[in-house]
Amino acid sequence: MGATPLQRLFSPRSIAVFGGRAAVEVIRQCRKLGFTGALWPVHPTRSEMEGLPCFADVASLPAAPDAAFIAVPAEATVQVVRQLAARGAGGAICYASGFAEVGGAGIDLQDALVAAAGDMALIGPNCYGLLNYLDGVALWPDQHGGQRLERGVAIITQSGNIGLNLTMQRRALPLAYLITVGNKAGDSMDAIIDTLLNDPRVTAIGMHIEGLDDVAAFSRVALKALQKRVPLVALKAGSSELGARTTMSHTSSLAGPDALYDALFARCGIARVLDVASLLETLKFLHVHGGLRDKRIVSASCSGGEASLVADLAQTHSLTMPDLPAAAHARLLAVLGEKVTVANPLDYHTYIWGDLAAQTECFAGLMDCGFDAHVLVLDFPRADRCDGSSWQTTLDGFVAAQKQTGAAAVVLTTLPEGLPDAVGQALLAQGIAPMQGTADCMLAIAHAARIGAAQAHCSTTLAVAGVSARTGGAGSSASHMLNEVASKQALHAFGLPIPQGACVHAHEAADAAQRLGFPVVVKAVSDTLAHKTEAGGVQLNLKSAAAVQAAVDAMAHLTDTFLVEQMAREVVAEIIVGITRDAQFGLALTLGAGGIWVELLKDSATLLLPVSNADIRSALQGLKIWPVLNGYRGKLAGDVDALVKAIAAIASYAEAHASSLLELDVNPILVLRTGVLAVDALIHLSGISPTSHPTQQGTA
Amino acid sequence: MGATPLQRLFSPRSIAVFGGRAAVEVIRQCRKLGFTGALWPVHPTRSEMEGLPCFADVASLPAAPDAAFIAVPAEATVQVVRQLAARGAGGAICYASGFAEVGGAGIDLQDALVAAAGDMALIGPNCYGLLNYLDGVALWPDQHGGQRLERGVAIITQSGNIGLNLTMQRRALPLAYLITVGNKAGDSMDAIIDTLLNDPRVTAIGMHIEGLDDVAAFSRVALKALQKRVPLVALKAGSSELGARTTMSHTSSLAGPDALYDALFARCGIARVLDVASLLETLKFLHVHGGLRDKRIVSASCSGGEASLVADLAQTHSLTMPDLPAAAHARLLAVLGEKVTVANPLDYHTYIWGDLAAQTECFAGLMDCGFDAHVLVLDFPRADRCDGSSWQTTLDGFVAAQKQTGAAAVVLTTLPEGLPDAVGQALLAQGIAPMQGTADCMLAIAHAARIGAAQAHCSTTLAVAGVSARTGGAGSSASHMLNEVASKQALHAFGLPIPQGACVHAHEAADAAQRLGFPVVVKAVSDTLAHKTEAGGVQLNLKSAAAVQAAVDAMAHLTDTFLVEQMAREVVAEIIVGITRDAQFGLALTLGAGGIWVELLKDSATLLLPVSNADIRSALQGLKIWPVLNGYRGKLAGDVDALVKAIAAIASYAEAHASSLLELDVNPILVLRTGVLAVDALIHLSGISPTSHPTQQGTA
Repeated sequence: MGATPLQRLFSPRSIAVFGGRAAVEVIRQCRKLGFTGALWPVHPTRSEMEGLPCFADVASLPAAPDAAFIAVPAEATVQVVRQLAARGAGGAICYASGFAEVGGAGIDLQDALVAAAGDMALIGPNCYGLLNYLDGVALWPDQHGGQRLERGVAIITQSGNIGLNLTMQRRALPLAYLITVGNKAGDSMDAIIDTLLNDPRVTAIGMHIEGLDDVAAFSRVALKALQKRVPLVALKAGSSELGARTTMSHTSSLAGPDALYDALFARCGIARVLDVASLLETLKFLHVHGGLRDKRIVSASCSGGEASLVADLAQTHSLTMPDLPAAAHARLLAVLGEKVTVANPLDYHTYIWGDLAAQTECFAGLMDCGFDAHVLVLDFPRADRCDGSSWQTTLDGFVAAQKQTGAAAVVLTTLPEGLPDAVGQALLAQGIAPMQGTADCMLAIAHAARIGAAQAHCSTTLAVAGVSARTGGAGSSASHMLNEVASKQALHAFGLPIPQGACVHAHEAADAAQRLGFPVVVKAVSDTLAHKTEAGGVQLNLKSAAAVQAAVDAMAHLTDTFLVEQMAREVVAEIIVGITRDAQFGLALTLGAGGIWVELLKDSATLLLPVSNADIRSALQGLKIWPVLNGYRGKLAGDVDALVKAIAAIASYAEAHASSLLELDVNPILVLRTGVLAVDALIHLSGISPTSHPTQQGTA
Repeated sequence: MGATPLQRLFSPRSIAVFGGRAAVEVIRQCRKLGFTGALWPVHPTRSEMEGLPCFADVASLPAAPDAAFIAVPAEATVQVVRQLAARGAGGAICYASGFAEVGGAGIDLQDALVAAAGDMALIGPNCYGLLNYLDGVALWPDQHGGQRLERGVAIITQSGNIGLNLTMQRRALPLAYLITVGNKAGDSMDAIIDTLLNDPRVTAIGMHIEGLDDVAAFSRVALKALQKRVPLVALKAGSSELGARTTMSHTSSLAGPDALYDALFARCGIARVLDVASLLETLKFLHVHGGLRDKRIVSASCSGGEASLVADLAQTHSLTMPDLPAAAHARLLAVLGEKVTVANPLDYHTYIWGDLAAQTECFAGLMDCGFDAHVLVLDFPRADRCDGSSWQTTLDGFVAAQKQTGAAAVVLTTLPEGLPDAVGQALLAQGIAPMQGTADCMLAIAHAARIGAAQAHCSTTLAVAGVSARTGGAGSSASHMLNEVASKQALHAFGLPIPQGACVHAHEAADAAQRLGFPVVVKAVSDTLAHKTEAGGVQLNLKSAAAVQAAVDAMAHLTDTFLVEQMAREVVAEIIVGITRDAQFGLALTLGAGGIWVELLKDSATLLLPVSNADIRSALQGLKIWPVLNGYRGKLAGDVDALVKAIAAIASYAEAHASSLLELDVNPILVLRTGVLAVDALIHLSGISPTSHPTQQGTA
């Protein structure tokens, strides 16, 4: 057949159900959705279920089912899964709880479940199942709020309850798949997404996740989605300290540090949202319009108050509302008259209310501006108390204008409840995004613009990051630190500029300083001295041989080996760079402004390795200190090109030592008007230390 | 009668309507709302309107109406208003546009309208009118979505369209009044709020504003509301550059600078929201619970996923979710069993679903913790497709627990549409806040906590700020600057510490420096030198008489007068303080961190004068640089007490010169480990300069 086990499970032609009440409900819900395949109840004692003959066991089934819904106790679930796998079933939903989420013996039982499944697809355990509204499949033991449709978005969630509630949405979101994954023992998020990416009816994929088990695999499938232009949206829980604590007690997955998730999402062009309504609105917009080319929007409303609110929230979400081109201005003035101020956002007033031709011309004038999204603000009266028939002309005009122009169009209700279901559905059918709530709408458009940008740069991203991320711990449990001199030399070999200097014995320091030229810095070099500055092991700005000698004498109790370096002058800024290793995310590079900037202002950015120079530059541009680097208010700029190259050199070192690098710090890199200099560095590697340290530094 | 004109207009016993279709609609809408007073249509030619006899003109009316809805053209509106005022009517809604919002002659016409009204209340022109759902009054020419009720919130908006849409809300918000103010020609926001504050049925007041005309009057009434514990919520448009532009084109009011509004709202305990849904949710929470004592919440859900989302968004809005007390822990464990992890947020699972006694005990256990808000997360299935009857037990248990404990309780649906109207109404009737959308709910609770804190400090605020703000421009059009020496002396007289120094002629500088002790600073003093640092008029850290003489010689071309000052050492931080004058807001004090902190990081706070020392300290604590002032990571702290006193001294100077002060800058104040020193200052006053400058500085 060619179908993978997960594809068979998601779009089955035969479904076996195991258990009592839940199994009955699956049959009912499948029938309600118009499922046309075979339904096979399996029960040891009942002869009939919902009018269907029961099979006594897996062996008695007429064939291997594509899908099974197993609602029997935990121990029995393992047996059924083993029998189904042996029979060649496609996959199973395991409804029972009592596995890893309860700890102890439950963890062993879950291991046994996974082993029993073998190559068969497995969703759960401790999950609510899945709904496939495209094919009328309800592997789902309960009522739900969705209906059959032709194409739409898929949502994957770890929470059965959130999944259930999402189906109850009243916002014209075409929900194609809802998949709850519970303990995620079997097929992982990446495998599920990969399967959905092979269904051309899936327009966008939403995820409510609390953690990822295999970041590398997820990253690969997320980049595949980017390439296929199927947008991903993540509601990642556990962003707060409180949330992370809750997440840990809920499932057996450990939520990773939030910055790494942000870095992963940024790389893969995944939109991150913080609330359930934002998830749905963003998916809805992406379903209709996909990624946008840019973030320039125009809005029309018949109220200046609404125009102003749209403008405020557009700016909050970094959207722009450019001035209208002169031609559009003239065209709108002609149809709206002198009483209306033609502008973006446009308050078109109600003079043309009810005039289809005028409204069409007005909206077409805006849509012909060629912006990235064209918003009509229009709240509808509540149908139970009011008559909304006079709204139809405005809607018709907007739809007609969109047909004329082909522009990306949005109808926005300022209140989420301001959009009747039927109007939302009708707009959706016309290819117009029906958006509910101004803030969520602006957020969704901003996400679509970012996703569009990520799609446009997809080939570059794939070239840089398409290789599999290296995750997992470093091999050896032993580890060692390279001292400053060794660390700097190691990084210098990859292209990191370091100060000109010499590593010398105490009696050679003054001579070395003479050769280098004053002023110099003298530092104690020692493999055992952890905090040399605090220990008095650093003296800056020494201007004579005598001063150098005095400094060396003062540090004599610390070591006999000293690093004498030229002292940099005219420093524009200090940048720190670190590489950290995470068992899930692999190597990540964090860059930030030195000192108080990072300590008090958290002025840093984290990128997953590998990185491109463009990634590094973009991260630097996002720092608060960027204006200093770039020369603000007429001040001299730092050498940003050299800084980018220096950070790329550190990243190259990390890539080359990916199997052994535990941690690395370059603190700081001095950014000069010409060039940069890394004045301190420390590298932590797994394994046993090599014997000797180099004693002579290269020339920067 | 004792009723004010606005009270008569808001709760009329007789209503006269003027005009055609709009007047007809007012009659219909009044009848629909069950208005029991007199309805008097006035029309020059018609004999009958909606079955009522028409009066030919104002003079023919049987009595002076309490309220009039005037829907005739702009010019005629002025005539009708004049006649109504003469007749002794309470007030009028002016529906017509064509006044100040169109500029030119419209401005004159609006002036004429205001003059015609005299002491009569006036709402509009260019407005949609008002709805009073308490008394069944619809001075409103259109359908609307609200219904009669006993008590609830009032909303005032400048936008008729936003007002209309707000009535369509489906979130169980008890809307008592909706008032649209259009051009705000007559009664101002403060007068309207003041009138609403006298109606005990009004529980909270929401405002959608684009600007305020009389900040001092608004401030007074806002403090009155604070004192009466009627919370205010503001959706202030024009926070963005884009929004401000739109706002200006919409009405004739000029939106003030956003920071001043924030300062005003903070002082008066007004919650600021950014979106329409947030406005309604915040008002709904405040209607039920008012201000809270603190911001400690607990949440219960039958899904860990929801618990985690609540925790994330609680933290986003600075709410805390404390651990449960031991007694509560034990009590919950007893009812929930070992399978459930007892924590806050609580995922109570579904083991007790359907068990009223167990659910009641579970919720009562949480509510007995005495937190400030107790949240049950519960989304309801959509009634058109699903059966929600099994949800009732959970609801009943929650209501029973609330009755037992009297705790501040909230039912939260994660999706706004997850709350059926009837459930929302039922909860409201039980004194439980039905909140829709997790983010908006957490925001509302956070606002309620801030409002509670403001209410608790109300007497202090009134003592400091209860005096009327001094607004308006300074009297004289002439103005002059005080030079550095004069400015510092003037501020020093109010208690601002300044460095020890002397203002001397060139030949006296070296001697003066000797007397003061080295190192010193030498600065050129001149009334005409605007940027002395840039002009080379400042030399720091001079360590000898010779260095001082050289400095003076180098500045000889600038002036013959020099300020020689002791140079401060061991500076912990630099703080800048400015006073600005705004025609609407009066004097405002802005404090911030010096240099790059304020330039790049916008690390500043703005406070309206007068201020208390507590206000100043709190503003300092909100700065990003606060940890530096306070001694972070073992570093030495600055003298914050002295800094607060110094800033208070500047504020005192400003208060004492409120009639003439245009602008004042103290840049910077050096914060030392002991004490502070203001090393530069500049004062700009209206009026003619006094003749002489002091030449001798006091001792710091």
